[in-house]
Amino acid sequence: MERIRAAVLGATGVAGQQFLVALDGHPSFELVRLAASERSAGKRYADALRDASGRTSWYCKEALSEEHARLMVEDASKMSSDGIDIVFAAVESDAARELEPRFAERVPVISTASAYRYEADVPVFLPAVNLGAPGPDDHTRLIDVQRRRRGWKGFITPGPNCTTTGMAITLKPLHDAFGVEKVVMTSLQAVSGAGRTPGVSALDIVDNVIPYIAGEEEKVERETKKILGLLEGDAIRPAAIGVSCTCTRVNVLEGHTEAVFVATKRRGSLAEAREALEGFGRSFLDLGLPSAPARLIAVSDDPYRPQPRLDRDAGSGMTTVVGRLREETTLGGAWGVKYVLVSHNTRMGAAKGGVLVAEYLLHKGYVK
Amino acid sequence: MERIRAAVLGATGVAGQQFLVALDGHPSFELVRLAASERSAGKRYADALRDASGRTSWYCKEALSEEHARLMVEDASKMSSDGIDIVFAAVESDAARELEPRFAERVPVISTASAYRYEADVPVFLPAVNLGAPGPDDHTRLIDVQRRRRGWKGFITPGPNCTTTGMAITLKPLHDAFGVEKVVMTSLQAVSGAGRTPGVSALDIVDNVIPYIAGEEEKVERETKKILGLLEGDAIRPAAIGVSCTCTRVNVLEGHTEAVFVATKRRGSLAEAREALEGFGRSFLDLGLPSAPARLIAVSDDPYRPQPRLDRDAGSGMTTVVGRLREETTLGGAWGVKYVLVSHNTRMGAAKGGVLVAEYLLHKGYVK
Amino acid sequence: MERIRAAVLGATGVAGQQFLVALDGHPSFELVRLAASERSAGKRYADALRDASGRTSWYCKEALSEEHARLMVEDASKMSSDGIDIVFAAVESDAARELEPRFAERVPVISTASAYRYEADVPVFLPAVNLGAPGPDDHTRLIDVQRRRRGWKGFITPGPNCTTTGMAITLKPLHDAFGVEKVVMTSLQAVSGAGRTPGVSALDIVDNVIPYIAGEEEKVERETKKILGLLEGDAIRPAAIGVSCTCTRVNVLEGHTEAVFVATKRRGSLAEAREALEGFGRSFLDLGLPSAPARLIAVSDDPYRPQPRLDRDAGSGMTTVVGRLREETTLGGAWGVKYVLVSHNTRMGAAKGGVLVAEYLLHKGYVK
Amino acid sequence: MERIRAAVLGATGVAGQQFLVALDGHPSFELVRLAASERSAGKRYADALRDASGRTSWYCKEALSEEHARLMVEDASKMSSDGIDIVFAAVESDAARELEPRFAERVPVISTASAYRYEADVPVFLPAVNLGAPGPDDHTRLIDVQRRRRGWKGFITPGPNCTTTGMAITLKPLHDAFGVEKVVMTSLQAVSGAGRTPGVSALDIVDNVIPYIAGEEEKVERETKKILGLLEGDAIRPAAIGVSCTCTRVNVLEGHTEAVFVATKRRGSLAEAREALEGFGRSFLDLGLPSAPARLIAVSDDPYRPQPRLDRDAGSGMTTVVGRLREETTLGGAWGVKYVLVSHNTRMGAAKGGVLVAEYLLHKGYVK
Repeated sequence: MERIRAAVLGATGVAGQQFLVALDGHPSFELVRLAASERSAGKRYADALRDASGRTSWYCKEALSEEHARLMVEDASKMSSDGIDIVFAAVESDAARELEPRFAERVPVISTASAYRYEADVPVFLPAVNLGAPGPDDHTRLIDVQRRRRGWKGFITPGPNCTTTGMAITLKPLHDAFGVEKVVMTSLQAVSGAGRTPGVSALDIVDNVIPYIAGEEEKVERETKKILGLLEGDAIRPAAIGVSCTCTRVNVLEGHTEAVFVATKRRGSLAEAREALEGFGRSFLDLGLPSAPARLIAVSDDPYRPQPRLDRDAGSGMTTVVGRLREETTLGGAWGVKYVLVSHNTRMGAAKGGVLVAEYLLHKGYVK
Repeated sequence: MERIRAAVLGATGVAGQQFLVALDGHPSFELVRLAASERSAGKRYADALRDASGRTSWYCKEALSEEHARLMVEDASKMSSDGIDIVFAAVESDAARELEPRFAERVPVISTASAYRYEADVPVFLPAVNLGAPGPDDHTRLIDVQRRRRGWKGFITPGPNCTTTGMAITLKPLHDAFGVEKVVMTSLQAVSGAGRTPGVSALDIVDNVIPYIAGEEEKVERETKKILGLLEGDAIRPAAIGVSCTCTRVNVLEGHTEAVFVATKRRGSLAEAREALEGFGRSFLDLGLPSAPARLIAVSDDPYRPQPRLDRDAGSGMTTVVGRLREETTLGGAWGVKYVLVSHNTRMGAAKGGVLVAEYLLHKGYVK
Repeated sequence: MERIRAAVLGATGVAGQQFLVALDGHPSFELVRLAASERSAGKRYADALRDASGRTSWYCKEALSEEHARLMVEDASKMSSDGIDIVFAAVESDAARELEPRFAERVPVISTASAYRYEADVPVFLPAVNLGAPGPDDHTRLIDVQRRRRGWKGFITPGPNCTTTGMAITLKPLHDAFGVEKVVMTSLQAVSGAGRTPGVSALDIVDNVIPYIAGEEEKVERETKKILGLLEGDAIRPAAIGVSCTCTRVNVLEGHTEAVFVATKRRGSLAEAREALEGFGRSFLDLGLPSAPARLIAVSDDPYRPQPRLDRDAGSGMTTVVGRLREETTLGGAWGVKYVLVSHNTRMGAAKGGVLVAEYLLHKGYVK
Repeated sequence: MERIRAAVLGATGVAGQQFLVALDGHPSFELVRLAASERSAGKRYADALRDASGRTSWYCKEALSEEHARLMVEDASKMSSDGIDIVFAAVESDAARELEPRFAERVPVISTASAYRYEADVPVFLPAVNLGAPGPDDHTRLIDVQRRRRGWKGFITPGPNCTTTGMAITLKPLHDAFGVEKVVMTSLQAVSGAGRTPGVSALDIVDNVIPYIAGEEEKVERETKKILGLLEGDAIRPAAIGVSCTCTRVNVLEGHTEAVFVATKRRGSLAEAREALEGFGRSFLDLGLPSAPARLIAVSDDPYRPQPRLDRDAGSGMTTVVGRLREETTLGGAWGVKYVLVSHNTRMGAAKGGVLVAEYLLHKGYVK
């Protein structure tokens, strides 16, 4: 069987490298083209990662595949979509605004950038939450709206911010079960979320916490409501959930930790909440997509879990680990729960989550 | 003028050493006696800190005073209160339950332990919050109740848990101004709060967050209501505030960071909230007590502050630094604010806070 | 084919757990018995790791095998050697002195403890260095001497200190090629080497270096000479190499980094040194033992490598990674090289290295 | 008494800020002018440190002085030397090559840059080592040579690399006492040495060691010989000492740790070595210069010291702390010692060390 021909934009950055890892040996997608900035263009990928001193900037635990290492890097601003069936884009927001529509005219663009995340006809997919979900909470059809409106053969679909990801995945089963009314969240985010240039300086984070990440809180509040919203006609009606959060950076390499407090419209029990979380996304998982984990959410009974270093790699970084599940009665609402979650910010929260979205869209015929 | 003769119990531990630093060169208190476990008894203090290999276990940035270094360590379980006017106790809770009453029969005991914190006739003082406050929110008089009930010449007064401290200090002016209805808080606590034996292992905290500190959340919820309560007759009526929190440990040496979300009964403005915070405790500060800082609360406009490494030493560790002050409308209530604070857990949050309490009680004649 | 029945002593500690991981699914060894202190005895292994609060103390990245989880823990001080063919011991030195001979009377004991490391009839095996080496540098035969002298059916063979391991592995090919005359080494050791109780406190190592590890330098100096020595008659003649080192602890979880300066008796070239390092142990590796990596030593050209976080897992923690290979002419000698190495202290440097030794001894008939 | 009017070039960077701290309240120097890049020119200093988001980039523990905060920043490339008596320069090497001679035509330039460090008529001063030393090891007179050759009224004198500093300070008394023949050194350097833009990324250093700092080893080897050399006629004859080193970066904020192995020409004892180290620079210290510490070198008996976090601030960062002093017999030579040192890389190793040099040159009439 022919594999779908994929390109990665922004291939030399942290998120781009994660796309390479997620696509290495992929049964359905074959990485055939790579693009980065002009500076890297015309070099083999392995050479583009190496500087004059011999230093190689490869940030993933997994080794770079030899096949990928030999690919020639193209200049993203000049690359055509010829011979490409799908684009995985991991470029900064400004570049995304320029580049992504150019490719979307012809082929699907799965993106990690926020550039188009808030446009009305652009779905922000989260597997099993609003993609492969049973009713009007499935947003897949918004792709058709986008294509029609923009006259594109392809489309753009950005993933959520990495901090939104873990929270929205855990809120969805609670919303289905009890009706989420409001959410208060404090994040303790890993440094890899900031990329590497400039990224977070050791001078800023060693023996320290940085209590602010520019723009992050607004993104989380806005995206959560969009992702949990319903598709009515040609538009998403955002979920009527109050969301308030404080986003901080801590001295952790990978894996975002979030302390979540939830008020619900209906009463429930911890046993029900746990069951809802652990059973979440069963029908989506039953599709057996290559990048899907065994469970989307795992609940731990050890009160000292989840911990980012120990739990970020659960389900190869695709399982959100929840712990410290307790009742929450202070927030108001009929009932509520509070918990801590760990979500891998560069796996499910970025590139590999994007590949899982692409797998589902392939299954549904949106990618071909 | 004669100085008050002070003893420190648990002098070799982290908190005990902080008492020594806080008392070094103190104008009113003279450290005359030191006690620790039987193992250290009979040695000069500097020798008690040194093990067989020559390793000296002194955990403070400040140098050990030469005068203190020469003091002979006594066995706490056998020490009498002769020649002592006040005891600063920094022992584990179990030891505190035994030792503290024995001294309290004769002299005031200022403690960092939780052993007696929740007994009805035991005040948990926080300077300017419920000590040196103008009305029934001043709990000083509970000392008289305690003495009367227990027939003691002295008394026991433990300080709050180090995580309660920063939150209660910042809630008080907001409560006075707007009436606090509920509070949701996530703490990012420093490792020094766990002491040193066993303390937090590097294997547990490097590149990690630990999402649980046994007993901490219950303490914060209970103590906050007690400290902000009113003294009615002979008893404290806890404040009717809903408190919900998640306490985590992060890879920071000193300084607890807390993300606080507050719903209030009355509407206000950020300018008013800021003014309330910055002006807090003016009359208490005007007493000019030796360990009091210039300001109990400082508010930063830099969105990237407070940071524990940069702000923990504000006011020599006695000023709580608040930043990211924003409106909070999700929690319910008429209005609300959210903010991040940094409080020094072993200064205001432990020994030096205790010394400030003692200074006020000396001023009021409860210590003499 | 029947598998060899193995027991692990000290199964609940950091090193013991590493033995469990190294034995999980092993083709030749079957873990049938586990022992730890009296406190754990009588519990299933998974329960012995869990404390009253529900906290599970499992320190390895790999999941605990379900089969191992169900094994019943025995009291090491009372365990017999019935039904056991080989013992992997990971207990403290004092306990090792007592326990190991009791088992060695009947079966081979592969140990991580230093208790017997310096006795004349006890080999300290390092794969391909003095085990499976071609001439009098092979120490295997010392097992016969030990058995004869002590009248044991089994024997004791401890692995080297984890800091010795990487240095001795890289010195051996240089010694063979150029004759090593003297070595100066500074280690930057990971915290996992100190175990977990007490281990290294976060308060000691965050934003810090500890310039001393009690006893470590003496061990490295002594063991290096023994391991690189020749077996003459029934005794090892230590190598006549001057060894001087300073051992420090740095804020790294796993993987010891060592800066090594070597003076040699014969002149050579960097190309020859590199070839010697990379080709090391070929005949040993050709045996295809299950725990052996593809290469015992890998040499990197990237001047910024090796780095412990990036290179400790090379060859599943069994490959020593060398970088920054340069000529060294200051030390004296005819010639010399200097380099930096990273060696995984709890894999090749402890349990998994021990399992590889056992695999070779099984191959040679010493284990059966 | 009139104070000397000082300017700081590169005032907004890490090293420049350290100059401001070192000059705050200085009895002899008054900071009257500040220069930085064009981007900062025309703003008050406090405003130049603040970005659009309100974030203030001040990297020192000490507060910015209010007087300095109000100074107007000038464009370094256009600043004249009018009204300035001395320049403290903390700019990158390329900028230094352009800017420093322009000022040196008129006034003394004390620099932290390496641009002119290796020119024959440029002294690299280290207090008490080759500045204020008794004989031909004093290099002060090289200033006269430089002025004469270049026709300048002022002069340029750069400080050594921060890694050279601690090693050269400790080698000098050993060289005087025993004749140093060769030195092998491994450094464990702090991240602050790399500055802040780009500096060291948290992604690179958390749970890690970086075994290479570009150019560092060559600097240390070359500078050490120059600094310890003798001024013969108009030129420095470098010391005939073999120097070999490996420079690494560790996860420490400030304070370089160095493991030093020294071979000497003459035999000695540890007691003599210790006495030489502790007594070093007595006559220099007796001058009572404002930035001089009580002791240039302190020797610790605690085997676990020096530690960068605990010892970097000794003598306000101007004292080099030595520990683990042991005999070294492997290296060759008649005798030898090995030890570990901690030196504050941004105090004695940079700005404050430069201010101390200026104080001595003021005392000698070279600055006026």
